[in-house]
Amino acid sequence: MSRLESFFAECALNVDGQLESLIPPSEIEPKNLHAAIRWSLFAGGKRFRPALVLAVGKTFGAAKEKLLRTAAVVEMIHTYSLIHDDLPAMDNDDLRRGRETCHRKFGEATAILAGDVLQTLAFQAVAEDENLSLAIRVELISEIAKAAGTPTGMVAGQQLDLEAEGRKISIANLEKIHQCKTGAMISVAARSGAIIAEAKETEIETISNYAANVGLLFQITDDLLDATQTTEVLGKTAGKDARAQKATYVSLYGLEKARRLAENIHAEACEELRKIERETSLLSEIADFILNREK
Amino acid sequence: MSRLESFFAECALNVDGQLESLIPPSEIEPKNLHAAIRWSLFAGGKRFRPALVLAVGKTFGAAKEKLLRTAAVVEMIHTYSLIHDDLPAMDNDDLRRGRETCHRKFGEATAILAGDVLQTLAFQAVAEDENLSLAIRVELISEIAKAAGTPTGMVAGQQLDLEAEGRKISIANLEKIHQCKTGAMISVAARSGAIIAEAKETEIETISNYAANVGLLFQITDDLLDATQTTEVLGKTAGKDARAQKATYVSLYGLEKARRLAENIHAEACEELRKIERETSLLSEIADFILNREK
Repeated sequence: MSRLESFFAECALNVDGQLESLIPPSEIEPKNLHAAIRWSLFAGGKRFRPALVLAVGKTFGAAKEKLLRTAAVVEMIHTYSLIHDDLPAMDNDDLRRGRETCHRKFGEATAILAGDVLQTLAFQAVAEDENLSLAIRVELISEIAKAAGTPTGMVAGQQLDLEAEGRKISIANLEKIHQCKTGAMISVAARSGAIIAEAKETEIETISNYAANVGLLFQITDDLLDATQTTEVLGKTAGKDARAQKATYVSLYGLEKARRLAENIHAEACEELRKIERETSLLSEIADFILNREK
Repeated sequence: MSRLESFFAECALNVDGQLESLIPPSEIEPKNLHAAIRWSLFAGGKRFRPALVLAVGKTFGAAKEKLLRTAAVVEMIHTYSLIHDDLPAMDNDDLRRGRETCHRKFGEATAILAGDVLQTLAFQAVAEDENLSLAIRVELISEIAKAAGTPTGMVAGQQLDLEAEGRKISIANLEKIHQCKTGAMISVAARSGAIIAEAKETEIETISNYAANVGLLFQITDDLLDATQTTEVLGKTAGKDARAQKATYVSLYGLEKARRLAENIHAEACEELRKIERETSLLSEIADFILNREK
């Protein structure tokens, strides 16, 4: 196992422990609601966003116990968005993280409520995190809400994406959609690690630029994988962008040019890291990992 | 206009002003998303929960500018829950607050996202409320999330309610459902006013008991109105509890007994107020108002 692989494995283990303590057990009523949340949350997700919280926090010297809950919270917000994105009225998807989607397993009404309450539990968890000062809790809630919300966050991006379906859109528009839909949450994961570590303002800005590039890189490789990998490997329906006539980096640039673009963005992310006077090899390895990921 | 009527009218005006500033304008992208939020939020709701924040806060001496944002936030959470409750997969309702429901007007996907992001904006608004200390902001977020969440909050109640549909349930169960589904948010509205006013712990507890009774009273009169009023008067579909074979206070007790129960609960709410060494006539007038409301 490479150093990065063991870092990811340890992250997943720690974050799952946190999530376990933050979500009511499925023996407590309403049992179906809690089972539905757990079904989607403990489905072997990559835990990429939590790993980013932990890696950036570690880079700037924060203790792990200060970072863990926020790492889990970022995953809760991400998972709530997946549950709602998969609904029949949205992407209408049957498969996620290698298993049935939440609404396929628990019904649509319960899936809507499971997503709703995951968001609630996420903000509650930050507010009640006694490892953090009041000022940091409030800053994290504000930053995470901005990244998850509107007009420049995840839900705004999801709406713009829906409206763009089946329509020809410009590259600038595609970038704006992704910046909101996936970039903002990836960025805030990285920023949260730096905020908790009480990094300097300039360091937080540099990390934001690194994370913006990493988020974009993540999206381009996502589009590449959707176009080139099988459903079996991905654990979610492959090839659906093309079928939905979605504008993607692959549909707009073609495979080869999208790959080159990914390499350039990767180089920019690593360039940002050179501005930081810390040991940043973990963060550059994460950028390498995303460039080369196969699922 | 009675004193209470002018209090409610002034509340609605002030709260609408706050909401206006907290929701992005519908000229900003994604326009449809912001228009959908505004459609549901500015539909002439009674603003009962915000009024409770303001009335309790005033009773304990808090300045209005400290209360207003939290009052608006409680209404945002309430409205997000109405948007999602009306969805085809949930209550499948066409009419709300006298106009088309959000998904009828804007489509299901946008309605899901509008509800999602209203919740996000609500927590963001508390976190960024510079009129309140960090400690109070964190306490409010924790309390509101608990009341909106699971296992004892609004979403838990909604799930229990869904599961009870078409089944015979006990009175104890019905009370638990309502305590979660509507009682918790009404209760936290009242508690929030007392928390912002920095009332004593015993006062906050007494206000919670008052609010629990007021919440129950609200639910019983809701059931009575659903059974006895027209759709036109209510501005939402009347008689739907009976059609959905929902357990209600009316179906379990009958009209007359449900009315007497409402009177008893009203008396208990007023009894609580006598324990508070403050001028509480505004709060008892609110209890009177709910007992006697006609829509």
